[in-house]
Amino acid sequence: MKQSAKGGELETLIQLLGRVPGLGPRSARRAALHLIKKREQLMLPLARAMAEAAEKIVACRECGNFDTVQPCSICRDERRDASLICVVEDIADLWALERAGVIGGRYHVLGGTLSPLDGVGPGDLAIAKLIERASAPGVREVLLALNATVEGQSTAHYISGELESLGITVSRLAHGVPVGGELDYLDEGTLAAAIKSRRPL
Amino acid sequence: MKQSAKGGELETLIQLLGRVPGLGPRSARRAALHLIKKREQLMLPLARAMAEAAEKIVACRECGNFDTVQPCSICRDERRDASLICVVEDIADLWALERAGVIGGRYHVLGGTLSPLDGVGPGDLAIAKLIERASAPGVREVLLALNATVEGQSTAHYISGELESLGITVSRLAHGVPVGGELDYLDEGTLAAAIKSRRPL
Repeated sequence: MKQSAKGGELETLIQLLGRVPGLGPRSARRAALHLIKKREQLMLPLARAMAEAAEKIVACRECGNFDTVQPCSICRDERRDASLICVVEDIADLWALERAGVIGGRYHVLGGTLSPLDGVGPGDLAIAKLIERASAPGVREVLLALNATVEGQSTAHYISGELESLGITVSRLAHGVPVGGELDYLDEGTLAAAIKSRRPL
Repeated sequence: MKQSAKGGELETLIQLLGRVPGLGPRSARRAALHLIKKREQLMLPLARAMAEAAEKIVACRECGNFDTVQPCSICRDERRDASLICVVEDIADLWALERAGVIGGRYHVLGGTLSPLDGVGPGDLAIAKLIERASAPGVREVLLALNATVEGQSTAHYISGELESLGITVSRLAHGVPVGGELDYLDEGTLAAAIKSRRPL
């Protein structure tokens, strides 16, 4: 009965939409219906945007960011501080930091975290390339902006060991109370870190 | 800073993805990253599926269902009971009933519910076409399978008035306890309906 209600094309569309992160089987059906209803305004432009992105977007050979130019516009921006490399797990983190506009330097996308249980070792992340970049003359600091998870922190620990011999500063993000956060909702680890790193007023 | 971190193509892709129901701005960014990482396996097939669906899928001129044939495969299926028309608000409801495999007849998609406050009157829904189809010889029953919301029920009430003079059976779905449902979690309206329509064992 299922096949007769929707054409094969629609079934294919729904199945592929269901593989997009954030869409489950039910929301994929809703999305497909909406797309067909908004054929000219949304479905065709989105199909074109995807085909275009697939053709034009490349991973920067320096930092791993996605862009249409090689190296990416951040790496080729001469106004950026070449002495600071901010290491992130994923491009989404790079975007978050760029939205905040808080990194004047360049980035390095690891592509994940070390995870021996999942078979992810140093060779699977862009660590060798990071060491190469950090060894270049003029680099003063590597900021490890990894997630405050067990995996993120053990990866940061491993990388800081690898960079030790270069004689540059290796830093990490501060732990503490999120701006706008309420103490009542915070876990004990965060509270302990916030107390330990307390600052004079 | 935002524009420099992503290319214009990527920004366009994220904006369009953010207009797909179920994806907000943050999940659109995650989806875009995932799509680019899965360029060959997901992004290009999805782009093609959308372009193909946009080209081939049409609304059935009889019932309003989406299909690649005109009239749709349900309307042209001779094995289906032509004497029953099941009226639904949206194609998603038609799909849900088809998955359950419980309607042996044909469908009629209204395209929404009456909503005077939003300016949706009878002329904005496929009501005239329903009356035309219900007037055809051989139609015995119109089942109003509309949502059990205020809008759905008032639309059902309006339609049943319009169909009254045709001398055919107009029915609605039963109210009651969902199969597998726990009484403790049900609202009073549902419980009252289930008691009122109780059945001998």
